[in-house]
Formats: sequence, structure tokens, C-alpha cells
Amino acid sequence: MHRVRFRDPAGSVRDGQWHDDGVSFADRTYSLDEVDVLPPCEPTKLVCIGRNYAEHADEMDNDLPDRPLLFLKPPNALAAHGDTVTVPEGKDRIDWEAELAVVIGAQARDVDAEDAMDYVAGYTCMNDISNRDDQNEEQNWVRGKAFDNSAPLGPTLATVDEVPDDAAIELRVNGETKQSSTIEHMIFSVPELIEEITAYVTLEPGDVISTGTPAGVGALSDGDSVEVEVEGVGVLEHDVRVP
Amino acid sequence: MHRVRFRDPAGSVRDGQWHDDGVSFADRTYSLDEVDVLPPCEPTKLVCIGRNYAEHADEMDNDLPDRPLLFLKPPNALAAHGDTVTVPEGKDRIDWEAELAVVIGAQARDVDAEDAMDYVAGYTCMNDISNRDDQNEEQNWVRGKAFDNSAPLGPTLATVDEVPDDAAIELRVNGETKQSSTIEHMIFSVPELIEEITAYVTLEPGDVISTGTPAGVGALSDGDSVEVEVEGVGVLEHDVRVP
Repeated sequence: MHRVRFRDPAGSVRDGQWHDDGVSFADRTYSLDEVDVLPPCEPTKLVCIGRNYAEHADEMDNDLPDRPLLFLKPPNALAAHGDTVTVPEGKDRIDWEAELAVVIGAQARDVDAEDAMDYVAGYTCMNDISNRDDQNEEQNWVRGKAFDNSAPLGPTLATVDEVPDDAAIELRVNGETKQSSTIEHMIFSVPELIEEITAYVTLEPGDVISTGTPAGVGALSDGDSVEVEVEGVGVLEHDVRVP
Repeated sequence: MHRVRFRDPAGSVRDGQWHDDGVSFADRTYSLDEVDVLPPCEPTKLVCIGRNYAEHADEMDNDLPDRPLLFLKPPNALAAHGDTVTVPEGKDRIDWEAELAVVIGAQARDVDAEDAMDYVAGYTCMNDISNRDDQNEEQNWVRGKAFDNSAPLGPTLATVDEVPDDAAIELRVNGETKQSSTIEHMIFSVPELIEEITAYVTLEPGDVISTGTPAGVGALSDGDSVEVEVEGVGVLEHDVRVP
């Protein structure tokens, strides 16, 4: 079952179900035109992973990390399926990064990898939009990675069993495939990431771990239409506005 | 007026007032022994500033930044006045850092410095507890700065007019003064910080900007009792447990 949060025509936020031809809550069904799809969870933070696919680290001229490279996005970074994402103005290069995102289901601290999947509510898609101009100049990637709308997330929350271990992950810009890999190429697995993060940080229900991007990143342009697809989750779509 | 959030003896969270001999809400007064003081706000994120006092940058062998060095702490980092703070285990050096913290009062984006104080609810005290072992090894200071309890905050929310422009800031460990400066030595002022942050990130009511620490940082030990005092706000006290 694919869950979806949406705002219905009366303005109520609903935790409903995703169908091929729309969304539903209780006995009410709507077309996507009638509702606003929302991010599938309400995180207190997004813990993101850098350089978790070898070919992407290579294309960025980075060494592979010997432990997960962590960084944070706050809730203001969220955007939803169907949104037009406005990126910081006056930058030379703002990149897409398709990622598998993990949604936490229960408060987690000091979790061993072997128990980690018990704390996972499911998976969704994320675009880790990255402002390279500032990312390359700052110690902590705040201007670079934490700006408003830098984390389009969704459209659905799929359960773990719906997403195969070798699920395809793909990103398309204006219909053209730019990234295409599978999540089995991640250097650190989801359970390993949860063990490492929760050694330091409590994860709350709704929090997100975004697991890094495969090779093929590139620069967004004004008016671009972006699709992030993870096999078993669906397709996250958003447009881009460069002021 | 010094506001204080606390949990009363019945378990209700109250937004009350701080007095020399306790706290009050409506017509009820309590001694501090009867209540749990809570952080004075409920941030969605804490935006922190590194190297904002020249003498501290110097003691850490760092150059002065040409624009504010930003990093993030998520809500799990919060701790309150009177708490015993448990720090990550097995580290060689976990430091104190006394800071003036700004609490945001209204949603803020693209704010000019000259208007910035309109968005400030008030000031409080913060200890930006820092795990140097990891901070010195990671790109983004997540293990180093975002771990649970790394941001004791409080005890009160003082209005801006209660805190002089040259307010003393001091940190004591077991009664001994370790840091002593004034907030007028900040390199980037509060309005300048708000302008810079809100060029990228929306600040929400209750969000915190912690403005950097003066010289005199040093390592915490198990059982230490820490006091952070900002003139006009009060004294934030917490204990330390090293597992």
C-alpha cells in the first residue's frame, strides 16, 4: 500500500492512499488536480548522506568516505510532489541529486544494524537539490544544501517490502534520463546508516534519512521539469524556477 | 519580563514568568524544585554560528570568516536548565561554548538587517557543546555538534531591551570562570546574521540563532556543573555525564 498525505479540496490534511488515477481517504476519492500532495511525512530533521555511491564520488573528484558523510536539512527544506521549486538566485550551478529516502517510524537511538529495519516506516523519493557555488566554499553545507525547497520529497510512502533490494533509481529532466542506477550500489546500507546516526542522534517518527545519489548529477535550469523515480515507490515530479 | 516554559506538578506545560525565587503561571507560583524548566522555545532548527569572536577563532587556530560560518543543530540537540547532559562516550575532548542565543518571533525570509530586530522574540543562553574528536574529522559537524543534548538552552526568554548591547557573557565550570567577554565583540551582529541566514533559509517562530562563543573553551568532565550567564537573561545551569 502506498500512503500519501494530501490537502483535500476543503483544506483538510489527509493521510490517504495513492492510486494510479488519483488519491483517496476513507470513502472519498479525488483526482490529483483536486488536491495538493504534501510530503509523505513531517520530519523534525532530514539526515542526509554524501558520497554513498562510488561512481558519484568519482564524478565529483571525491575519495570514498571511510564512514558515512552526514549532513542535515531542516524542515524548511521540504517541498512536495507537484511543487514549483524556487532555488537561490544568482548561482552558477544548482544540481539535481536523485535519492532513496528512508522515513523513520519509531523513535530510535543506539540501534544496532541488525534491528534497524524495525524502525523504518517505509521509503520515498527525494531530490537533494545542491547549490554547488556555496557548497564548495563552506565548511557546513547550509547555504549549499539546507535552503528552502532543497528537498522535494514524495510522492508516496511505500512499505519496505514494496521496494526491491536492487530497486532502480532514476532521474529525468524534461523527459531525458540523467541518472540511472540501483540502490544496491550504495556503499553504506540503510541499516548501517541507522546504526551510525543513532549512535549520536535520536531519530523521531517522520524523520528522513536520504541515502545519497548515484552518478549523473548536473545543473538545473529555469523551467525544468524533474522526475525522480525509485522502483516500488513511484515518480516524484517537480518544476524548477531560477529567479 | 523574563518568560519561562516549564512543566508544572500536574504535567502541564506552562508559558509563565521567571522570578528570583521561582516561576509562576496565572495566579500559581512554584519553587524551581516543584517544576521542570523546559527550553524557552520550540525550534524547528537551531542555526549556529562558528568563529564569531576573533579571540576564539585565534585559540582554535582558525582564520576569521569573510561571511558567517553557519551550521545546524536539530531539535534533538535541545536540553534544558537543570538537566544532566549525557555526552557521546569514548571521546577525548567534548568542549563547552557559552553563547548568546536569539529566539525568532515571526516567520522570516529575505529580511534586511535594518528590519531584522522586528523578527526577534528575545534572547536566551546556550551552551554549544562540541565533540572535537568528530568535529575535526567530518565535513559537516553532525557527530561533532548535532548530537542529543548538545544544545542546553535557557533558562528564560528575555526581551531585547533587557539585554544591553555590551552584555557580559560568562561561563563557569564548578564555580570557576572559564569564559568572560561581552557580546559587542561578535564579528557579525544579530541583524547581519538574520539577513544572511534568511537569504537562503526561512526562520520560523521559535527557531534559534546561536551567535558563536568567545575565547576560553575547554573540555568537560564527568560530573561537571556548568553555568552560562548572559547579562540581562540569567544563568543557565546544567550538569554533565560522560558515560
